[in-house]
Amino acid sequence: MLPFARVTMIGLGLIGSSIARGIRAEMPSVEVTGYDAEPQVRERAVEIGLCDDIADSAGAAVIDADLVILCVPVGAMGAAAAEFADDLPADAIVSDVGSCKESVAAALAAALPNATIVPAHPVAGTERSGPDAGFATLFHGRWCILTPADDTPELAVERVAEFWRRLGADVERMEPAHHDRVLAVTSHLPHLIAYTIVGTASDLEEVTESEVIKYSAGGFRDFTRIAASDPTMWRDVFLSNREAVLDMLQRFSEDLSALQRAIRWGKGDELFELFSRTRAIRRSIVEQGQDDAREDFGRTHD
Amino acid sequence: MLPFARVTMIGLGLIGSSIARGIRAEMPSVEVTGYDAEPQVRERAVEIGLCDDIADSAGAAVIDADLVILCVPVGAMGAAAAEFADDLPADAIVSDVGSCKESVAAALAAALPNATIVPAHPVAGTERSGPDAGFATLFHGRWCILTPADDTPELAVERVAEFWRRLGADVERMEPAHHDRVLAVTSHLPHLIAYTIVGTASDLEEVTESEVIKYSAGGFRDFTRIAASDPTMWRDVFLSNREAVLDMLQRFSEDLSALQRAIRWGKGDELFELFSRTRAIRRSIVEQGQDDAREDFGRTHD
Repeated sequence: MLPFARVTMIGLGLIGSSIARGIRAEMPSVEVTGYDAEPQVRERAVEIGLCDDIADSAGAAVIDADLVILCVPVGAMGAAAAEFADDLPADAIVSDVGSCKESVAAALAAALPNATIVPAHPVAGTERSGPDAGFATLFHGRWCILTPADDTPELAVERVAEFWRRLGADVERMEPAHHDRVLAVTSHLPHLIAYTIVGTASDLEEVTESEVIKYSAGGFRDFTRIAASDPTMWRDVFLSNREAVLDMLQRFSEDLSALQRAIRWGKGDELFELFSRTRAIRRSIVEQGQDDAREDFGRTHD
Repeated sequence: MLPFARVTMIGLGLIGSSIARGIRAEMPSVEVTGYDAEPQVRERAVEIGLCDDIADSAGAAVIDADLVILCVPVGAMGAAAAEFADDLPADAIVSDVGSCKESVAAALAAALPNATIVPAHPVAGTERSGPDAGFATLFHGRWCILTPADDTPELAVERVAEFWRRLGADVERMEPAHHDRVLAVTSHLPHLIAYTIVGTASDLEEVTESEVIKYSAGGFRDFTRIAASDPTMWRDVFLSNREAVLDMLQRFSEDLSALQRAIRWGKGDELFELFSRTRAIRRSIVEQGQDDAREDFGRTHD
């Protein structure tokens, strides 16, 4: 039995359009309605037949939904929810896909004081954006973290969990605050660092930007891929999860200073010890299926 | 006409074994001799038929070579060259594949005062190590940077350039000091940052290592791939290119502090401006063929 019969996506970018495609592939009898604040995105969604129906307003989109998923930048969640608050059916469940959970939970609760809300975060994505970027298998084998409040009905949580399992994800539950600290280190800090180093490299005087691009295969290009992620989404993430990000950044800076010192004083043993330890973590990630084992620096290999 | 008839590789790891395989594929009439200081690596090279001959000593390996390529960590270049100094034919050219050029040029010149030396750096690699990790196409479409001294005979430089072109690389020339600064930013700094962040993530108290691994698909896993690179090689790189690496690290830290400040004070515009700028650099790298255009975060896509 399917957990929902009529699902509405508010926001049709990479994640929203991947969910729409995933429903088509895995739950074809579900009726999918979409809405996006950008008229061009709605037009494009109609063109490519992304959903059964594309609504002209958020209110019209949710009017007969039993699941509404907000797929907009975390800073826009509250306003997007307020837009359809008056039209939301009483028995509908509201969820989202935001990368920060404490701030989003607060924004949704304020905008929809009487709704049943089950916040979710599928830990998956690509460096692309927009309705053409999504694909049905994006969530396969990835984790989706649910962060319901303690008083959320268990049945509602279980229906959202089953929805994500049908899309191919493994589901986990977490306290919102803990989620925000875990993701600060596994996702937000890496993006912040990648954006920074790409900025640093493009601002040098004696090394030109064309040299940076030309010789990027030595490691830099991997950072540029992360730093090509959606600017609006990531601006919102850093502002919304500020405390956890700043705390992780502080620890990172301390560790970087220690490494800087080891290099300055020629302490090869310290460097070697760290570089050996990090290798083991990579092994675990591949063993647990969270990354591909192929050697990806040799991208033209196959 | 082939630039060399008998090529010797000292060091049979990822790069040495890739060169051996590339010669087999692109210049099959060239006789390839290999040597590695590790007896197990020599044994493995014999087992997989990596070279025409595996020598038992560095001296025996170079005895009739017309090109000798040192493929050992940059900190081991001087000692490795000294081992075969007495057996090197007078007309042989010596080259290397080290990631730092000033320190290696000095070490080779000291160990081989009468030899013709053409230092080289193929900007290519993977996160794997050892004689089984190499493959013939590793250098296809990648840059190989030559950093000869001003008094090196032009014919010797051109022969080494032609050798790399035959392996599929594009060849560029650079002053050693400039090379070291360019690579400090496009390769050494990214690796240092990746090693640091993986270390930071594995040292947290309230977020467990297993959580870090589990939710790594949000960005962290990309850093672990870089941080899985060979520890000995990278220890040597940071110690050998110390000044340039420390200088780039200083600039990076300043930029990171500015970003930290923007987050703390909620300056979304500053973040957005940087995040948009970095996207354009990614586009150039893909356009110039230095990276794959496929969205790689969705690794299971195809």
